Amino acid sequence: MGIITLLTDFGIADSYVSQMKAVILSIADTRIIDITHEIKPQDINEGAFVLQNVVKYFPIGTVHVAVVDPEVGSNRKGIIVTTINQIFVGPDNGLLIPAARNLGDFIVYEIKNEKYMLNSISSTFHGRDIFSPVAAYIINGIPFEKIGKRIKNFVNLDFKKGKIENRLANGKILHIDKFGNITTNIDGIAFKKFIKFDNKIIIYINEKKLNIPFVKSYNYVKKRHFLATIGSSNLFEIAINQGNAANKLNVKPYDKIKIIF
Amino acid sequence: MGIITLLTDFGIADSYVSQMKAVILSIADTRIIDITHEIKPQDINEGAFVLQNVVKYFPIGTVHVAVVDPEVGSNRKGIIVTTINQIFVGPDNGLLIPAARNLGDFIVYEIKNEKYMLNSISSTFHGRDIFSPVAAYIINGIPFEKIGKRIKNFVNLDFKKGKIENRLANGKILHIDKFGNITTNIDGIAFKKFIKFDNKIIIYINEKKLNIPFVKSYNYVKKRHFLATIGSSNLFEIAINQGNAANKLNVKPYDKIKIIF
Amino acid sequence: MGIITLLTDFGIADSYVSQMKAVILSIADTRIIDITHEIKPQDINEGAFVLQNVVKYFPIGTVHVAVVDPEVGSNRKGIIVTTINQIFVGPDNGLLIPAARNLGDFIVYEIKNEKYMLNSISSTFHGRDIFSPVAAYIINGIPFEKIGKRIKNFVNLDFKKGKIENRLANGKILHIDKFGNITTNIDGIAFKKFIKFDNKIIIYINEKKLNIPFVKSYNYVKKRHFLATIGSSNLFEIAINQGNAANKLNVKPYDKIKIIF
Repeated sequence: MGIITLLTDFGIADSYVSQMKAVILSIADTRIIDITHEIKPQDINEGAFVLQNVVKYFPIGTVHVAVVDPEVGSNRKGIIVTTINQIFVGPDNGLLIPAARNLGDFIVYEIKNEKYMLNSISSTFHGRDIFSPVAAYIINGIPFEKIGKRIKNFVNLDFKKGKIENRLANGKILHIDKFGNITTNIDGIAFKKFIKFDNKIIIYINEKKLNIPFVKSYNYVKKRHFLATIGSSNLFEIAINQGNAANKLNVKPYDKIKIIF
Repeated sequence: MGIITLLTDFGIADSYVSQMKAVILSIADTRIIDITHEIKPQDINEGAFVLQNVVKYFPIGTVHVAVVDPEVGSNRKGIIVTTINQIFVGPDNGLLIPAARNLGDFIVYEIKNEKYMLNSISSTFHGRDIFSPVAAYIINGIPFEKIGKRIKNFVNLDFKKGKIENRLANGKILHIDKFGNITTNIDGIAFKKFIKFDNKIIIYINEKKLNIPFVKSYNYVKKRHFLATIGSSNLFEIAINQGNAANKLNVKPYDKIKIIF
Repeated sequence: MGIITLLTDFGIADSYVSQMKAVILSIADTRIIDITHEIKPQDINEGAFVLQNVVKYFPIGTVHVAVVDPEVGSNRKGIIVTTINQIFVGPDNGLLIPAARNLGDFIVYEIKNEKYMLNSISSTFHGRDIFSPVAAYIINGIPFEKIGKRIKNFVNLDFKKGKIENRLANGKILHIDKFGNITTNIDGIAFKKFIKFDNKIIIYINEKKLNIPFVKSYNYVKKRHFLATIGSSNLFEIAINQGNAANKLNVKPYDKIKIIF
């Protein structure tokens, strides 16, 4: 049966996502799982970050369709990215690359064969007209070589990790979740090697200074108190126990952060 | 296995939608696809427009349950609308008709047989108590004639197309999507016969005048610039490349639009 | 195949929910149904109320994973709650209990066996690392006794019903839905025994006094007029026909309500 996942910036109020699902189910008898459709409009970085964090939990053979596509209708390529155990379909703008790299080596194909697209292709919705049918045909076993041709040049994207040295860590914010928890690009596991839980650390973020404990989980500090922890993607995270840290600090993705420990 | 789709104005914060899915899965082993649950409360026109645009992508045999139902609990009828290849279930208030008409001829049945409803029927939630079980029994192969009786009178709804003549087009806004793109009732394919891409057109909308290019896709103008294009439903659309045209123009559905080209 | 449902306060913008689905589908070939992910952050009562209202519609054998978990990473237990026909998995904080009690007698197991959890367990996301795999193994037929051990002590939660006596009912608001309809803890079926539809009642709520009709459904009063009715969960409900009663009255869950009839 197989799994096709969908990640887009389309939202769920319009019918765009269901049009993609309809196209997929017209071609393949497959399971469809939504990763999210709430990526900020045209924010390729956010889409790539969210996709990167989720793929390792999916079974072998999963095909991910990701569409954050500000250049739709231009001559930007559509690509298939294959790894040893999962496959990605979407625009050639970097969106798919961090997730693929997370799974090891990968190969990129440019989508070429119109036989595996819808008969009528709009200029504004390749998610429905090209990427969805291609993913469905891949689930059905059509070889990549029949759908496209291998390419060496593609748009790269790489989330650099923050630096940890001399009791100082420098990084930036990568993501703010629904709870207002602030995920950074500092490796939480690496950070943990330098400092034990329950010690205090100093954080400079957006011209504010925090003196807060590094703890195992949110509820190791009192309600409404700040904390730092290792988030569920193993990244260094700043939060407020049962509160919204991002709102309180008025921060946003790509703001810089400095930690002294 | 078959597909049942759901379109409602229930939102996803409450459990109404999952109650419908629970009822369906208690009766039929079917796949359930959400079209959207974010139709504006009681906005039958918006529901009908969204449903109309998505159905042509679904496979033969799909059963669509649509519930935007301000008159629930009154004596408004519940209906089944059958076309040559897809089926619709919901209230008799026009919601289902444009989508059915999009697929060709259609026949309307009034839902009558309580055997195919839940045992206990609330006055406020026929989506769960009547329409969901009826859809599930249809997927299971129960003939329409056993569930209801054919009727000739039903509440009609028809989205009139805008007029194009003498280098002038008159229409109205039908829908504003998450990106702020403005879909009108002017046929984009017909419009395209009169004017080539990359020519400028003049648009009057809400007492504002726009002099903007008619282009193949969003990124054919600079970032944050206005454009007109043919949207993915083949309707004339006004947008801002990577921006929100509806907010900028302060327009809403049913506002009038005039194009000089 | 079976059904696993998910109810969380994670929202749908992040990938948390899809990480749970990925884990489940890596273990079991099951159907996954979202109840809701829009429970207010850390609001155990709201989660318990929503779960309680939906379970009776699900088929025998359904496994519900519910995660509203402010104490994640502490020593709060993870539990399985079994009833005669459905099963619940989640934190031991009361969240699962009203839904289980709705189905009759229930037995509680503490989750113990790490064999049925992910290999690496975060301190912040037991929904993914413990509850999802446990639910998937239960669907696969692993006996409860292998996963945990039976316990007698668990965190209880019980939604007391409002009191109806001497033409007076006293209760509180339990939930406000997307439409602004106000659900109370007063039993609508019991209330109906004392008063017929279309009679007027007096309601005191948040220092406001309403003199409104008790009717069969929303559209039994004029548009934008207040009404009281029996909601789809058989609870006494206050609403405005095609309007938002909660906004108009400026009320919130747990506000008190008094009815004179």
